[in-house]
Amino acid sequence: LVRTSRIAIDIMGGDHGPTITVPAALAALCRHQQLETVLVGDREQIEPLLRDAQASQRRRLRVEHTTARIADQDRPESVLREHRNSSMFLAINLVKQGAADACVSAGNTGALILAGRHLLKTVDGIRRPAMVATLPVLASGRNSLLLDVGANVGCDAEQLYQYAVMGAALASVSLPEQTLPRVGLLNVGAEAHKGSEEIRRAAQKLQHTPHLHYVGFVEGHRIFSGDVDVLVCDGFTGNVAIKSTAGLVRTVEQMISHAVEEHPLRARKAAPLLKQIRDIVNPAHYNGAQLLGLKGSVIKSHGNADSEGFAFAIEQALQSAIHAVPQLIAERMASAIRPSN
Amino acid sequence: LVRTSRIAIDIMGGDHGPTITVPAALAALCRHQQLETVLVGDREQIEPLLRDAQASQRRRLRVEHTTARIADQDRPESVLREHRNSSMFLAINLVKQGAADACVSAGNTGALILAGRHLLKTVDGIRRPAMVATLPVLASGRNSLLLDVGANVGCDAEQLYQYAVMGAALASVSLPEQTLPRVGLLNVGAEAHKGSEEIRRAAQKLQHTPHLHYVGFVEGHRIFSGDVDVLVCDGFTGNVAIKSTAGLVRTVEQMISHAVEEHPLRARKAAPLLKQIRDIVNPAHYNGAQLLGLKGSVIKSHGNADSEGFAFAIEQALQSAIHAVPQLIAERMASAIRPSN
Repeated sequence: LVRTSRIAIDIMGGDHGPTITVPAALAALCRHQQLETVLVGDREQIEPLLRDAQASQRRRLRVEHTTARIADQDRPESVLREHRNSSMFLAINLVKQGAADACVSAGNTGALILAGRHLLKTVDGIRRPAMVATLPVLASGRNSLLLDVGANVGCDAEQLYQYAVMGAALASVSLPEQTLPRVGLLNVGAEAHKGSEEIRRAAQKLQHTPHLHYVGFVEGHRIFSGDVDVLVCDGFTGNVAIKSTAGLVRTVEQMISHAVEEHPLRARKAAPLLKQIRDIVNPAHYNGAQLLGLKGSVIKSHGNADSEGFAFAIEQALQSAIHAVPQLIAERMASAIRPSN
Repeated sequence: LVRTSRIAIDIMGGDHGPTITVPAALAALCRHQQLETVLVGDREQIEPLLRDAQASQRRRLRVEHTTARIADQDRPESVLREHRNSSMFLAINLVKQGAADACVSAGNTGALILAGRHLLKTVDGIRRPAMVATLPVLASGRNSLLLDVGANVGCDAEQLYQYAVMGAALASVSLPEQTLPRVGLLNVGAEAHKGSEEIRRAAQKLQHTPHLHYVGFVEGHRIFSGDVDVLVCDGFTGNVAIKSTAGLVRTVEQMISHAVEEHPLRARKAAPLLKQIRDIVNPAHYNGAQLLGLKGSVIKSHGNADSEGFAFAIEQALQSAIHAVPQLIAERMASAIRPSN
């Protein structure tokens, strides 16, 4: 018997709301028999989108009705004052109450972090939660993790160290047992004297940390090289890094589309190879940034994700619930503070 | 009559030294009739590589002999003590003496910055020089500039402001007259409250700066979008951004090569399109990071650039000399400090 996991979904968040999030939920329900969902949002908008759902999908979903939502333009702080009835707040609250094992939202990032901290609290020893992005490692077919990608603008040595411990915990659930995740600090060079004082102090702390293999300073080009599982940096740098690489991917995509229009015959011949390239760099396949360091699983989807992309974010929530990532981080923080072996 | 420009080339720098730098110099001499070069390095290694040079190339080059070089592993500071006879130091010194209009090196970055500051001094009002990278804007066929990409790890509002003024000056030489360069500050979001205190202060200073059009905060994905000419950030962020996008390009390259090996027929059909993609993202075409803010033109090539790439760095030096970029920056700094219109 497979244990089911229940995921709360903020149906109203993101640029497109229910028209994207409801079909994504149905697709995820179809793919994963052990998944149950709570769709938090406006019943009148949700119900028509469920008309074609199969009985086996309907049985594993319920709607928690609210018409309120927090918009991207709203100040994040407002989620704790005017927007306690918003679909986002209620979805996180379901995790707090134990009525859901994880939640997903494509809404206002700042509000999600604030409400997450307010409702779920941080794991003992964690100062601030971090957002972690999954990146494709094209060469090896494996993924790597990059954090923080924007939860905190600045950070000191202690925070970088905590990001490393949390990232390693998350990476370990998809590695073979006994395999230590390889963790590196993003820096402008590999030599020990490079970077800021804070990075150099974080490096010293990481030398003797259990449950991870610290590989030293790594430069930006190794993000996609496949020889590091977890790359750690401050949230400003990480945010620019994922957005600039995503921008490059989008631009290459546009270039391919343009070439296809100009030379249709040439493009038809190249179609299988182009599909191969597009599949691998498809941003939808890497949608979903997990908030690490809270006592509950919260996943942020891109606001402009399509249905395929939002379904990947739901999948991340499911994996986080199955592997009890918040509990694992709590264990690792406890052993990191008092290394026993 | 076209005025000639003389470029001093550190022949011994980089991973491959003369075998790369000498052929690159010959290629540049062939392409630009107004170019003269001084090849600074070991005559015994250089002469054999000049055997096939045409008379018109030979006439426009001379060798300045030295066997000394500074290695990548050397501490940057050593360039001012033990390595004053190094090919790098001597090449910069030629610029100082007025015997060359610009210089190029693929050697130790830290040493190049230190020696550049020591010999050439910074432009009045510039606290520290910055390194600027040229990036492909695939959509528009134009390029954008990103700075700082690693000359300084941290930076405050005043430095960000100076980077913006310098980047705008460089961008203006390749824009139509009367067209103001569009300048943005890289940030984690476009809203005014985003980012650090220093970035927000820099934004205020940039509102009323002459000779540039300040477009506000821009996110990482706009690096390649073509709607911003100059993107400004601290050297840590910029360094990670260019290296991570370069890493992605290299990985896509490898993926294409792999696919070509696996499906040779499919690849042959896709060959013209693949060539188109490869040409545009070819890192060699964007090699060469200019050091801005010195009273002389200094261009840094990637250490592992090939001959084609190093020739592009020489070309940048030539353009910087033709357009007298250091003098232009001095003028812009003077009018930025005392805006008269």
